[in-house]
Parts: sequence; C-alpha cells; structure tokens
Amino acid sequence: MKIESAPAPAQVRGFRFSGIHGGIKKKGRRDFALIVADRPCAGAAVFTRNRCAAAPVVVAREHASSGRIQAIMINSGNANCATGEQGLKLARWSCEEVAGRLGIAPSLVLPCSTGVIGVQLDHRVMAKAISLGVDALSRRGFAAAARAILTSDAFPKWASRTLRLNDHEVTVAAMAKGAGMIEPHMATMLSFVLTDAKLSPDAARSVLESAVATSLNRISVDGDTSTNDTCVLMASGESAGAMIDGPASEGYETLARAVAEILDEVSRMIVRDGEGATKMVDLVVVGALDDGEADRVARRIANSPLVRTALTGADPNWGRIVMALGNSEASLEMAALEVDVGEVALVRAGTVISEEAVAAARRVMKRDAYAMTVRLGAGPGRATIVTSDLTEAYVRLNSAYTS
Amino acid sequence: MKIESAPAPAQVRGFRFSGIHGGIKKKGRRDFALIVADRPCAGAAVFTRNRCAAAPVVVAREHASSGRIQAIMINSGNANCATGEQGLKLARWSCEEVAGRLGIAPSLVLPCSTGVIGVQLDHRVMAKAISLGVDALSRRGFAAAARAILTSDAFPKWASRTLRLNDHEVTVAAMAKGAGMIEPHMATMLSFVLTDAKLSPDAARSVLESAVATSLNRISVDGDTSTNDTCVLMASGESAGAMIDGPASEGYETLARAVAEILDEVSRMIVRDGEGATKMVDLVVVGALDDGEADRVARRIANSPLVRTALTGADPNWGRIVMALGNSEASLEMAALEVDVGEVALVRAGTVISEEAVAAARRVMKRDAYAMTVRLGAGPGRATIVTSDLTEAYVRLNSAYTS
Repeated sequence: MKIESAPAPAQVRGFRFSGIHGGIKKKGRRDFALIVADRPCAGAAVFTRNRCAAAPVVVAREHASSGRIQAIMINSGNANCATGEQGLKLARWSCEEVAGRLGIAPSLVLPCSTGVIGVQLDHRVMAKAISLGVDALSRRGFAAAARAILTSDAFPKWASRTLRLNDHEVTVAAMAKGAGMIEPHMATMLSFVLTDAKLSPDAARSVLESAVATSLNRISVDGDTSTNDTCVLMASGESAGAMIDGPASEGYETLARAVAEILDEVSRMIVRDGEGATKMVDLVVVGALDDGEADRVARRIANSPLVRTALTGADPNWGRIVMALGNSEASLEMAALEVDVGEVALVRAGTVISEEAVAAARRVMKRDAYAMTVRLGAGPGRATIVTSDLTEAYVRLNSAYTS
Repeated sequence: MKIESAPAPAQVRGFRFSGIHGGIKKKGRRDFALIVADRPCAGAAVFTRNRCAAAPVVVAREHASSGRIQAIMINSGNANCATGEQGLKLARWSCEEVAGRLGIAPSLVLPCSTGVIGVQLDHRVMAKAISLGVDALSRRGFAAAARAILTSDAFPKWASRTLRLNDHEVTVAAMAKGAGMIEPHMATMLSFVLTDAKLSPDAARSVLESAVATSLNRISVDGDTSTNDTCVLMASGESAGAMIDGPASEGYETLARAVAEILDEVSRMIVRDGEGATKMVDLVVVGALDDGEADRVARRIANSPLVRTALTGADPNWGRIVMALGNSEASLEMAALEVDVGEVALVRAGTVISEEAVAAARRVMKRDAYAMTVRLGAGPGRATIVTSDLTEAYVRLNSAYTS
C-alpha cells in the first residue's frame, strides 16, 4: 500500500545527517546513517521489551540513561542480535569510532541496527561505513538518513511540524522504518524524533513516553516484537525561547501534542507499509472492564490470522471476531456484543443485523483504510490497535527472505 | 500435504454410523453424521476453552456430565455459534428429535457442529437431516460418518487399533476433522473415539484426558482456538473381559496407550491437512524451567508468522526463533541456547555453528516432516507442539472463505 510522503523536512536546527552505502547491504543500497547534533542534546529513548534484545540495544540503553545524546548511528541489513560477546564488542567499538571522528565522548553515541538476526557484522565494513558516514554529514541530509535505515520497507517514513512555541518557531521531525516483525512494545523497529525546542532531559523523556504510548505502541503488523526496537528523541535547544522543564512549563502541551501527532503519522506509515499489507484498519475496542483488558482484546483480534485474512478478502466474517474474542479471556456477554465496520452497524445484541448490513460492511472493507469498532458493554475500558491485513504477499516475502 | 489413510475400521462392536447430505452444505456434499451405540455407553468428553463456546458445546457439556452417552449428532457447514437463544433452542430440540427417533433419552445425545460462525441453522433442514441420518444408520457406516464431519479438510481422518486386553480382542477407533482455527485447548475441532472395551465412566474420562493432553492439545495450525472444539470417547463394553474401572485395573494401561496413539495419529493428520500446509514440524522445547514454560515457549515459536513462513521457505533463519523466544518471557541465557534441525546441530552456545550446518539444516527443512529442537539450558521443563507452515495457500483459502 503506497502512500504519498510529504516532502522531507528541509532541516532541523542544530542537526546534521548522512545516509550512505557502506557495504553491509548488497548492490550499492544505502545501509548506514548518522544523526549528529552540534552539541550534546537533552534526549530520551525507549527500547524493545523482547528479552533477546540486540547488542546495540544493550549499549544504547546504557548510553541513553544519562539523558544526554549527541549522535545516533544506524546500520540496516544486519540486526547485530544473537551475536554474543563479539556483537557487543563491535557495538561498543563502533560508538568509540564515531565518537573519535566527531571528537565527542563515546557515551553520547547511541548505536542502532536493523536487519537479519544471528549474523556477525564485519568490523572492516563498519569502519568504512563510519568513515563515509561522518564525511557525508550535512544539514540537508534528513531524507538520505531516512532512506538508509530501511530494510524491506517500500518507502521512507517521515513526518514533521513547525509550531510556534512561546512566540518562537520550533520544528519537530521524525523518521522511522518498519515493514515486518512489528508489534512494538515501548518502541517500534527504529524511529527518531528531532527537535530544536529547548527541553530538559526529564521533559524529553515525558514527551517521548506519552507520544509512544499513543502511536508506536498501538500498531501491529504481525504480532512479532522485534529484538531491535528503538525510539529516540533528541532536542537540540537551538530555537529561541524559554527552557521546557516538564509538564507544567509553558509550551509543553503544544510540543507534546506535535510529537504525538508526528509519531502517530509515521506509525500509520509503518502499518501501511507492513509487509504485503493492502489495508490499514483501526481496531477499536470499547466497553472492556479496563483499558488493559481492551488492549489485550484488541491485540488478540488484530493478531488472529483468521481475522487478518478476512480483512484481506474484505469479508465481514464477524464469526472470526467472536472466535478471537472468546480466546482473549475478556469479560464478555455475547448478548451485549456490538460490532461496527466503518459507519455500518453490523452486529447488535450479539447477532448480525441483516443481510443488507453485511453487504454494506463488505463495501466499507473494500476501502484501503477504515475503522472496526467492537463494543463489549462490560465497563469503561477502551483501546485502539492499528493493524494491517495478512496477505499472500506477506507469506511470499517472508518465506523467500533468506537467512 | 496429502497423506495415505489406512482403510477405515470395518466396524466397532456395539456402534452404528451414518453420514449423509441433509442440505446444510451445497452441492450434495455430506454434512450430517450420527454415531449411535446399541445401549448407553460409558463416555467422557472434553470441550473448547474458548469463552464464546458454541450452542452445541453448551448442550453437550451438560449431557456429557452424567458419564453416559448413547448418540453423537454432528453437522458440518454451520458452527451454530454466536446464534443466541435461537441457536441454543435448536441444539436442544435437535437432541430431542434424534432421541425421539431412536427411542432414547435426549440427555444421552451429544450435539456437535462445525462450520461458519454467526449464522442460524435452519430448523427444517436439520429435521430432514436427522430423519435421513437415522434411516441410514449402519454397522459399516464409519467412513461415511468420518467424511460427513469434514469442512475444508482435504481428506478424512481416522485411526484404529485392535488389541488383546486380558485375553480378549478389543477395538479402539477414532475419527476427527481439522483444517483451520486449530490450536486446540482440551480438544480439537471435533474428534470421536469409540471402543468396545468395558470401561467405567471414570476410567473413560481418565483415558480420554490423558490421551488428549499428549495429542490434540499439542498441535497448532494457526493459533486460533475454535469455538466448537469437542472430543468424545464412548465405550460400548461389547467386548468380552472384565470391567476396567480405573488406572489400577488390568488392561487400563494398554487401552490408554492405544487411545493416546490413535489420537496422536489423527492429530498429526489434522496438522498435515492444516489449511495450505506443506510441512509438519515437531517443535520440541527442552531445558525450560518447567513443562508449563516449555509449552508457552513452544507455542510462541510455533505461532510466530515469521517462524512459520521460514518453515515454508525451508529457511534455517534461526534469528526468528531467537526473536520468538525473546517474546515468550522464557528464562533464557543466550549463551546456553542450542537449536537442532532434524539431526543437524545448527546452534550451540547461542551462535550458529557454521555455514555447512546452515546448508545441512536447509536440506532437512526441505523434507515434509521433521523435528526442530530448542534447548534453553535452564531446567527440566519440556514440551512438544506439532505445527504446520504458513503458506500463501492458507491466506488464499481464508481470504476467499465467505461469511
């Protein structure tokens, strides 16, 4: 499902970028990116909950804990995961290498990797990539970096806003990659949010965590959480205006909303570019006992292969939703169940309304994006998961992708 | 994946069968079956854990609680699930109708349904099917009944053993249907075990539950547990020999082993006939903290779309196993992880052994059945899940199957 990307942000004050071919991928494709701030930034990062976290995640978690970040180094084509001590050493060494060339402390560099799991990165290839990447740094390199972090993505993913914050102009911009192994917990595959706003590290963390909760953590392409999920926010503070220290500061809400919006935008791009996806569906569950239960129900429905193939075929097979609900351990009275497909009321009081409603639901399901709402009638809990369909192309892509 | 079925059991003493076209499915395909004992049998049944259990499951659970069963009525083509009060009334009425025609108590009849969810069964069609089904009852109708319970199955599933129990000949036979929505909990879609052994109801329950635990509850085609799963054991007692009252009785172990074997056999037929399946893989997890953890790990791996598409492509992409492991919340030291594919040692000490091992593993994965063993090194827990691959044909079948 291709979408039209807006033009890449021209620049974000205080940042330089590069995206080059360093030799990790074949055929001259871009595979190495740098995002470098002129000075140490207030920053925050969230990482995968997968227990087999990749080597770069281990190192980035350590480095991000200080709340100061100056550079992010990303390679695609190799996840540096399940690579043991050797992989961990390489991740640490590559931070030192980047830091040395930039003249900064290694602990200010966050490493990120994405690609195949279980294969060692080549030390010499990385050294060359780092050298080329530092040489290519430029104020206008945002789009090149956003392209270099992709793996099986069909298109680059970015979004930005320019806002007035306390009478000064501020830019926030995000880039991301997605495609497969997508059910982020705390973060998606890789995404980076950059702003020239003046933020304290605490404010950066708070803005990032609330934005991720309503965007990246609400999508699922295949229910498989990656080992490398990382989302980083860096605030260069190059804009004019007062420091934003926390939720009580003037301008905090405006900035937090802008970050949530652009992360929602790139999250939806990740779903639309889900491997083989032809549909994007907002699966809304309301009336669960609490929000946690609504979330579990929505994920159970979204990740059922039988539900996701029904989306593919534009088939209002609500029996499959009932099956998935029944497997979710939700508090459920069938007699209270309601299902809407887009604006069409399909199920009321646990039963399908009419043949006409089925036909109308089928018409909605032929669209490439719509919402499906499931009401349980048990309580105030609600959650939305944005998901894609399961297609023959997903299977083809993933059974051909060679280790 | 077609397999050669053994000839259907010629007969099981004390039982009659029928399998006819009653008009629930189109095109004259068989859609209604009866299994009727000459006298009330000692019997036991286990049912789905799906919370949206179908109407016939609700009724069959009540009727089976007495430990006495004389007839099983099965329709395919309609699951009678999410059909509200009307569906429940129809299930009860159909038991009365069968019982009336057989001259037995309605509570001795277990109803079972399989097919599309959320559509009402037609009362008149069922009345006609019951009438035709009773008229067609025959000692030699086992194969006809086994065919009539199928939905999207490619072939009928049965297995049998003739054994000597305390110097007398005893037959045990099972029939089952499968195909999709297969991750049974307590039972699979529908399966029926018949024997002429003399069993008490308690012994029947104990034999059934232990056999299901090692067979039907150890398979997964798509991780979706059906709303209609039912497995029934009926013992006519027509064989000669002493009553088997419980585990301490002479012959109990022999009989229990035979039942476990034939249920394992039909379970594997269900996996081989999984929608679109081209492979059957025994996913063996050893070295978990306990058996429960091993089971959760094995299911997490088996149900990962990325693992299952790697099986399709015969791709020894062990990184996907690492990813699924990391999402399973298993106790895990990467340094202890070992993976074998068939007889090939692929991963040792958390790392792939060699390119030659990868090539050898790829050769094993081209077979249509093999085992994959994952060793966690954390404790004595072990579990096996028998699974199939995720193919384009699965997606095609399920995106075309119309509600």
